[in-house]
Amino acid sequence: MHRLANKGYVFALGGVNEIGKNMYVIEYGEDIFIIDCGSKFPDESLLGIDLIIPDISYLLSKRENVRAMIVTHGHEDHIGGIPYILKQLNVPIYATRLTLGLIESKLKEHGLLADSSLNAIDADSVLEIGQLQVSFFRTNHSIPDCVGVVFDTPQGAIVHTGDFKFDLTPENKQYPDLHRMASIGSNGVLLLLSESTNAERPGFTPSERLVGEQIEKAFKHADQRIFLSTFASNVNRLQQVVNAAAKVSRKIVLLGRSMVNVVEVAQALGYLDIPDGMLIEPEEASGLPLNQVAVLCTGSQGEPMAALSRLANGSYRQMEVLAGDTVIVAASPIPGNEKSVARIIDNLYQLGAKVIYGSGASTGMHVSGHGSQEELKLMLSLMKPNYFVPIHGEYRMLHQHRLLAEAVGVDPKHILIVGNGDLVELEDGDASLGGKVPSGDVFVDGLGIGDIGNVVLRDRKQLSGDGILIVVVSLSKKDGSILSGPDIISRGFVYVRDNELLIEQINAKVLATLQELKSAEIKQWNVMKRTLKDEIGSFLFAQLKRRPMIMPILIEI
Amino acid sequence: MHRLANKGYVFALGGVNEIGKNMYVIEYGEDIFIIDCGSKFPDESLLGIDLIIPDISYLLSKRENVRAMIVTHGHEDHIGGIPYILKQLNVPIYATRLTLGLIESKLKEHGLLADSSLNAIDADSVLEIGQLQVSFFRTNHSIPDCVGVVFDTPQGAIVHTGDFKFDLTPENKQYPDLHRMASIGSNGVLLLLSESTNAERPGFTPSERLVGEQIEKAFKHADQRIFLSTFASNVNRLQQVVNAAAKVSRKIVLLGRSMVNVVEVAQALGYLDIPDGMLIEPEEASGLPLNQVAVLCTGSQGEPMAALSRLANGSYRQMEVLAGDTVIVAASPIPGNEKSVARIIDNLYQLGAKVIYGSGASTGMHVSGHGSQEELKLMLSLMKPNYFVPIHGEYRMLHQHRLLAEAVGVDPKHILIVGNGDLVELEDGDASLGGKVPSGDVFVDGLGIGDIGNVVLRDRKQLSGDGILIVVVSLSKKDGSILSGPDIISRGFVYVRDNELLIEQINAKVLATLQELKSAEIKQWNVMKRTLKDEIGSFLFAQLKRRPMIMPILIEI
Repeated sequence: MHRLANKGYVFALGGVNEIGKNMYVIEYGEDIFIIDCGSKFPDESLLGIDLIIPDISYLLSKRENVRAMIVTHGHEDHIGGIPYILKQLNVPIYATRLTLGLIESKLKEHGLLADSSLNAIDADSVLEIGQLQVSFFRTNHSIPDCVGVVFDTPQGAIVHTGDFKFDLTPENKQYPDLHRMASIGSNGVLLLLSESTNAERPGFTPSERLVGEQIEKAFKHADQRIFLSTFASNVNRLQQVVNAAAKVSRKIVLLGRSMVNVVEVAQALGYLDIPDGMLIEPEEASGLPLNQVAVLCTGSQGEPMAALSRLANGSYRQMEVLAGDTVIVAASPIPGNEKSVARIIDNLYQLGAKVIYGSGASTGMHVSGHGSQEELKLMLSLMKPNYFVPIHGEYRMLHQHRLLAEAVGVDPKHILIVGNGDLVELEDGDASLGGKVPSGDVFVDGLGIGDIGNVVLRDRKQLSGDGILIVVVSLSKKDGSILSGPDIISRGFVYVRDNELLIEQINAKVLATLQELKSAEIKQWNVMKRTLKDEIGSFLFAQLKRRPMIMPILIEI
Repeated sequence: MHRLANKGYVFALGGVNEIGKNMYVIEYGEDIFIIDCGSKFPDESLLGIDLIIPDISYLLSKRENVRAMIVTHGHEDHIGGIPYILKQLNVPIYATRLTLGLIESKLKEHGLLADSSLNAIDADSVLEIGQLQVSFFRTNHSIPDCVGVVFDTPQGAIVHTGDFKFDLTPENKQYPDLHRMASIGSNGVLLLLSESTNAERPGFTPSERLVGEQIEKAFKHADQRIFLSTFASNVNRLQQVVNAAAKVSRKIVLLGRSMVNVVEVAQALGYLDIPDGMLIEPEEASGLPLNQVAVLCTGSQGEPMAALSRLANGSYRQMEVLAGDTVIVAASPIPGNEKSVARIIDNLYQLGAKVIYGSGASTGMHVSGHGSQEELKLMLSLMKPNYFVPIHGEYRMLHQHRLLAEAVGVDPKHILIVGNGDLVELEDGDASLGGKVPSGDVFVDGLGIGDIGNVVLRDRKQLSGDGILIVVVSLSKKDGSILSGPDIISRGFVYVRDNELLIEQINAKVLATLQELKSAEIKQWNVMKRTLKDEIGSFLFAQLKRRPMIMPILIEI
């Protein structure tokens, strides 16, 4: 087949109209490039689901064309799907060193490391993959080593920003490469994909340095132990904690698996500089005066099994929060986590701790990793794209991002808001919407990937609300007489022992129904079951206004 | 028994260390007074529970002493428990007219109105109930007709603020009665109970009038239909919508049961002034130009069955949102509702609506009904209490309220933070903590009150996560041979038809286990069931990392 060098497609398999499971695809001629491979957490309606990853059936149908997966940075919503996707499609991965380090520990856990092709790049790398040239530009965000990606096509450049802010005073000196962005813009950008997380937020996101200053101040004021909880992946913030601890001669204890893991990876790769002897084990802390210990821990999102939550309810085995200790929650709750974080703060206050929490000017213990409106406008102004597709955000964010693009002069007709699976077709230097590829949520539940469907979820929903009532009757094959039962078993409905009268009534209802069915000479199994279900269901709803799942089990012997 | 005129108790049966289900109790000698009787919504872990109300077993044990229930205002967290509590304890209710009107429609719904004793008071009423004098003072909040309560005891006054802000420019001219508060303070307050909702928020909450101005502005700018969603009970805001609509000659459509109900009650009692002919039915709206219709609807908290949510997803039968319509969400999401509200806004944008949402300076479409730190300090300064108990809030709010009280000069040793059930003992003009009465959450599920316990909730939790797997086998009474089965039925676990191999494996596992049990001559029913449960459970966890509820049903015939 002849390669159509002037035709390409850009689309999302995850990440638009949602926060999470980012996966964008560039298909140009016979070359397919994947950008990022994230996961997201299910909302509360998806009972029992552990994780959601993108549907890649389109990629599988063209697996021989898939050349590379480029990963912009090491956050879960950009790398969390990799182990699951790699099992289905083993594609070479390209990422910066820290990102690669975090992917590696994930693949190790899943036993996939040996078979994977991991390729380190840096912001200056230029790759020739398939028929395209791929290059990068340095950005910054709440994890080090972030890049944007540029695909040079015969029609012009396709640029993907990754996640970014413009922190012009970054703690780690990884400055956003304004000059490179300007030069990409000058050379002409056909299509820009830019992230929209903070498109609703006016102004300019403060520098991470602000948090460092506040941490230092809090460290100077504390006279007992300090516990600080933040996202483990925010390596720059961890560095600032280390620096503050060094200034007041505190040792550091790490609590929580991901904290230990990220520190290990970041330290090994040189992204985190911790003086020798500063890290100590929890047991060693007990030998030190309270004012010589700082604890860095996971759980800033209120995760019930993470270190902070267990410290707050006194169930952390190796360490406890004492009255007078300082606890800093250096994070904003992600929507949906507000209540669990609040519960932790309540518990910490009840222990007598001094708690510093809340974002914004009041405490300054957290700043966003995403650029606000002025920064999004800055990116758009630098790139001067001919076409613009806002990505990485829910619809209202994409919508606000569109308004920002219009404000800086992008032609409104050249702004395309897409859903997952919508194809942006590039031809002769023009972009237009057209067609769709399969896309959607694939549920991970335990070891199962994609085996939980709507029927199962609907059943879980019903079971969760009112439980189940099982009625077992065995009937004689000969004459339909009852050989045993009815036996009534219930779980999650009412506690049988406390509701003997109700159970007797159900029993009587079953017997009466079976008698009626017999009189009417109805013997079809499914009709009998349905009748029992309806009769018991109406009875219980009238009595209790509850709708347990009703499961008649008839056994013929 | 002789009455101890110089001894009393004050305690909460709901409302401290939580937001919701407010119920405070004053017990003085042989007189018991209840203040408020709220409900709260369960958090997501309480599967299937509809509502939570306070445990009143202490009150029931002293039912002959309970003299009155005084209700400070008509919000659900202060009146929602009344129908359930009244069924157990029929106590005379005292409240202002609007509050009483809202209680009435609740009691009507529950068929309790005829037997209830409802007594209207106003801010100037002075009641002699039992041995105490009870009087009131006008406050304001996000519903009209709010009062604080004063109990005059021989030891001094006990004051309960109710919910309040200091809106000095109230739309309805119900000014907070500063002079009365000052005079109560001058006469000496033994104990103040003051609400803590916004104790974490610096500054002074803006006047509701601000919202009115923004609504008017939005109404002037809209050129198609306007949909405005807010709390139905915020009658002042409804009035401001009516005023804005009148200015631009729009008719008003009401959507949602509670909106229709509150408007009816408030209008009948004279709290809401709607020009004749302004209210129209949804059907009439279709005959009018788009710019002559404003719709007031429920659902500002993202409730999935309420009007706004159904309008946003296009499933509202009588009305639809068109591209170009303006939708105003005049409310802040209560913690826990952020995601559902955001989903609605996404859907509205996708319909092409202009959406105005978000609180604070950016839109000004919502202000809190609760006083911020400066107002809490103002209340404390007016009342100059000898003892202070912060109420109505989670622990961190009570804690912050304590700091505010210290800052305005309340003796730190005279500030008592209590939990529900903790007794504050008043004797000889001194207050101290001592003793406890039963308190807790009573769950309402359908028509059942308090019949759902931990076992049932734990089962619902397990069922919701991984579903249930039922194994039915009938065995011969004679020789233990299998007469029928094993039959495998599952719900919420995996879809049986798509997992034939797994079902076969489970079948084999059951047969093998039964065979082993037989060889070992084990015949005890419970041992056999437990063994089957363990064997199948381990097998499924090894295969799938899932833990469905496993229910072996053995039938002996």
